[in-house]
Amino acid sequence: MDIQSQKRKSLAGLKPYVPGFQPDTDDFIKLNTNENPYPPSDRVLEALRALTPDQIRRYPDPLATELRKKIAGVYGLNADQVIVGNGSDEILRLIVTAFVDPGDRILTVYPTYSLFETLVEIGAGSLETIDLEEDYSLPDAVFETKGKIFFLANPNSPAGDFPADAVQKLCAAFTEIVVLDEAYVDFTETTGIPLLAKNPNLIVTRSFSKSFSLAGVRLGFGGASPEIISELMAVKDSYNLSALAQTAGLAALDDLASMEENTRRVVKTRELLCASLAELGFRVYPSAGNFVLAKCESVAEAESLHERLRERKILVRYFKERRLDDCLRITVGTDAEIQSLIEALKALKS
Amino acid sequence: MDIQSQKRKSLAGLKPYVPGFQPDTDDFIKLNTNENPYPPSDRVLEALRALTPDQIRRYPDPLATELRKKIAGVYGLNADQVIVGNGSDEILRLIVTAFVDPGDRILTVYPTYSLFETLVEIGAGSLETIDLEEDYSLPDAVFETKGKIFFLANPNSPAGDFPADAVQKLCAAFTEIVVLDEAYVDFTETTGIPLLAKNPNLIVTRSFSKSFSLAGVRLGFGGASPEIISELMAVKDSYNLSALAQTAGLAALDDLASMEENTRRVVKTRELLCASLAELGFRVYPSAGNFVLAKCESVAEAESLHERLRERKILVRYFKERRLDDCLRITVGTDAEIQSLIEALKALKS
Repeated sequence: MDIQSQKRKSLAGLKPYVPGFQPDTDDFIKLNTNENPYPPSDRVLEALRALTPDQIRRYPDPLATELRKKIAGVYGLNADQVIVGNGSDEILRLIVTAFVDPGDRILTVYPTYSLFETLVEIGAGSLETIDLEEDYSLPDAVFETKGKIFFLANPNSPAGDFPADAVQKLCAAFTEIVVLDEAYVDFTETTGIPLLAKNPNLIVTRSFSKSFSLAGVRLGFGGASPEIISELMAVKDSYNLSALAQTAGLAALDDLASMEENTRRVVKTRELLCASLAELGFRVYPSAGNFVLAKCESVAEAESLHERLRERKILVRYFKERRLDDCLRITVGTDAEIQSLIEALKALKS
Repeated sequence: MDIQSQKRKSLAGLKPYVPGFQPDTDDFIKLNTNENPYPPSDRVLEALRALTPDQIRRYPDPLATELRKKIAGVYGLNADQVIVGNGSDEILRLIVTAFVDPGDRILTVYPTYSLFETLVEIGAGSLETIDLEEDYSLPDAVFETKGKIFFLANPNSPAGDFPADAVQKLCAAFTEIVVLDEAYVDFTETTGIPLLAKNPNLIVTRSFSKSFSLAGVRLGFGGASPEIISELMAVKDSYNLSALAQTAGLAALDDLASMEENTRRVVKTRELLCASLAELGFRVYPSAGNFVLAKCESVAEAESLHERLRERKILVRYFKERRLDDCLRITVGTDAEIQSLIEALKALKS
């Protein structure tokens, strides 16, 4: 049997999403996948240690009722406006599964989170991207598009930060579903969650991977109208979220202060990182996330710095893509990690 | 915006999979969702307690390399023949995502695990089912079918246990992909994993939920040719399996003896349960899983027993479906739990 002939026709050209390199040793300074450099709340570890054999042995609550209530309480929603999943990646996938028919036109900006494109390809949709302005602001063209879904990450990665009124304008202008991916929102002030009240076409997704330091747990949620949530629930795997992740999420939300303290520290270090990179001659795009996009003098310099930093056991992210191949995306680590990075860059640039 | 008009056309008639009732209190004897009544290996709890803040904070290995190697070693495969996921449910979904184009004909038997139907509906395939014989054996018609995928659970739920040579015959007769769902295989002797060597169209799925007592963790795997595994890996969520589940799986596989001891105890209790049900006048179908299908005298009796057992805080599974609506599916609990069930049934039947 020839497997290639068996697979879905629409997957013939699929470019799978490529996650950042995850080393299996601990001797790297890891500034490539936007993890939080600070540990999660002690309460999360305590809650995981308190898991009982019965919680492991039995199926989890398929509706994650307690966690959804807790999230609703924290974010000013009702529980029926919340769906939880294995990272916000799962929520994004469920949106495509529920709403994208083959050939449907899906919109997003460029550059942005490349998973949007992968998910649309898997869902056999037709992706159209609109280039962000040179300074990573939103072009007016986004407000004139038509299609089934508009995916917008805010803060955007690898750069870009859009004001709340622009998001509201998009929700009003776009006649179908707007997905606002807020994976990095805790590192800034602007959130679209209040916009849910007056925009029934809006879905906001959130991740616990970055601000809550829970990337290893796989936890995210989506907020939307009860009608949209109901459609997403209908297509999810029935036991999509483990008892472990439900437990970790509840504990994390019991200690928002710890998350907020960590994000404050990251934002402070981000300022130091931006200033140091500018001093070294990089063009630094404004960042509202836990990462910074730094433009090098050339593609060759970016490639070389990426490789030579890796030799020095410092990982940063390099995208061999249009508009990004002369840039490095650098996750905001601890002050000490960023100090090491800056020293290494100084040595490499001199 | 009318959400119904937004959703995928093929989802208009979707009947979502209905998981068994998961009570939020501990005062039930829970014989409705085929959980293992015995706790998982101590090593699993120890491993979860030993999770470090860094394992929680960082993304998990997206390829789950260590766990896949371990599974390969235990089951006589190579690591590139193994994919891991959030329960075997995720593997089953990925198979549909990778291989089912809209309209593709998918086959399975009836009755069986109803998730197959749900997944095919979500994938916009066209499901054709072949009735099992009255005694739950395979009819010859299954060997004459044509289509994109044949889903066969063995042991089947709610009843049925097919010999290895019948599975081999199906793999040889069916020209495209055969999926053998072995969620319950550790409670019997027959496994299709050795058939992978000579059947490149076979995918075997396994769950850690039943025999390993890890339903709360969400862990399963698929075994197949490297070519098939590669197609499934291309469509999975990139970080589909948490560091927690990877850790739990590794620990569970370090203590196969504990799983085997638990499955032996369940099989012994299953014999007691079958004999007691037969004595009470139920027709009991042969079972190779950790559950027993018991036929009542009528639909009314089955419905009544299901309800009256629930009032007595004993949960069993009732399917209001053709051929099953006069039956109860009873999970094999501990000896004490089964004793309580039998006493309750005696009282209710007298």
